Amino acid sequence: MSDTEMTLAELKTRVLAFAQEREWLQFHSPKNLSMAIAAESAELMEHFLWADSEDSHKILDGAKRGQIEDELADIVIYSMEFANVAGIDLSTAIAAKMEQNARKYPVEKARGRSNKYNEL
Amino acid sequence: MSDTEMTLAELKTRVLAFAQEREWLQFHSPKNLSMAIAAESAELMEHFLWADSEDSHKILDGAKRGQIEDELADIVIYSMEFANVAGIDLSTAIAAKMEQNARKYPVEKARGRSNKYNEL
Amino acid sequence: MSDTEMTLAELKTRVLAFAQEREWLQFHSPKNLSMAIAAESAELMEHFLWADSEDSHKILDGAKRGQIEDELADIVIYSMEFANVAGIDLSTAIAAKMEQNARKYPVEKARGRSNKYNEL
Amino acid sequence: MSDTEMTLAELKTRVLAFAQEREWLQFHSPKNLSMAIAAESAELMEHFLWADSEDSHKILDGAKRGQIEDELADIVIYSMEFANVAGIDLSTAIAAKMEQNARKYPVEKARGRSNKYNEL
Repeated sequence: MSDTEMTLAELKTRVLAFAQEREWLQFHSPKNLSMAIAAESAELMEHFLWADSEDSHKILDGAKRGQIEDELADIVIYSMEFANVAGIDLSTAIAAKMEQNARKYPVEKARGRSNKYNEL
Repeated sequence: MSDTEMTLAELKTRVLAFAQEREWLQFHSPKNLSMAIAAESAELMEHFLWADSEDSHKILDGAKRGQIEDELADIVIYSMEFANVAGIDLSTAIAAKMEQNARKYPVEKARGRSNKYNEL
Repeated sequence: MSDTEMTLAELKTRVLAFAQEREWLQFHSPKNLSMAIAAESAELMEHFLWADSEDSHKILDGAKRGQIEDELADIVIYSMEFANVAGIDLSTAIAAKMEQNARKYPVEKARGRSNKYNEL
Repeated sequence: MSDTEMTLAELKTRVLAFAQEREWLQFHSPKNLSMAIAAESAELMEHFLWADSEDSHKILDGAKRGQIEDELADIVIYSMEFANVAGIDLSTAIAAKMEQNARKYPVEKARGRSNKYNEL
């Protein structure tokens, strides 16, 4: 199944089933899952540590691509599990956040600029 | 649209459109996006910093629930954007990672245990 | 030399010399060093990921103590190097931050409580 | 007191006294302190998120310098507190780690290169 067919609900179900089979829900507190997401993000980041931004594109297409895909997968897996444990409908949460962002970063003001919204 | 209908492809498309409209792709190197994911993860984690695992469930259902949903949304948004920039089919990457994990953590050995696979 | 004799200036000098000998200053931008600190912090954190707070004391005194000391050392090394590159006198910065903290967290209000200052 | 006079032991003592006065040791498990260090590192990193490495030097000398000094101070404060709680002599731990690093990154092989030791 590819991204064009995979729904967030289906992905969440698979991640939950994996944890349930192993009786891991007892370890999956919001606190611990937030740490797991942060730890996996750091592993993703480490691949690009000393490279400049442009070279980070080359790293992505080099020998480490498989590892990089794995780290990103881990981040998304733990994020889905956080949503499971917290009872969060991610689509709703993301739509709400993107509306907020659209108000904070109106196209005319934000175009081509990386400033924070309070510095635009 | 809720998680039962939202596909990863649709979510990725929305996130990409938001960045494109603002001409932000120039800032979205793999390096920078990995930092953004890590920074947002830390913000999620901060909500649970001094709480123990059990209390972290209460925090989730308290006054900060909206903020927590926002942080999780940000992590997923930047993860989708990383997948966009990197040309990663997340469903495929996650399925591959979960198969790896299933081999590393067979149900009989991993049940009810939080040890790393090399310490099971 | 132990902590009773080692000054911050001496530590900073050693860390800088190590980087200079290897011509690594070119990689040591504030951005990259902040990522390195974050990456090392995540490695420290990973040792305590699924443990509850109490058990984290036991982990500290177990087989991983050496690794944990190494991760903490890395965090401090990169922090010293950040101070080198940024020209920060850490003692002054820390004294200023602790005064701020003392105002935000007066003893009578903060005693035995882990709330943020704006929630005390 | 400046970095030329401030010893690590003195700094550790000050940080511990601050926590003890507020009866905060109960929250200062290794797990929680490792999360606090990681959270503060992410805040430091956020200042440089969308800048390239060169521009991160300018950010350092701009309007945010005070905030950046504060974030670095927080990282070092929590690192000292971790050493307090764990009974770690940091100078010894750092000297050991730097010897390890010197073996992994001999000057002749590592000069001017940012590769990991196993890729030199």
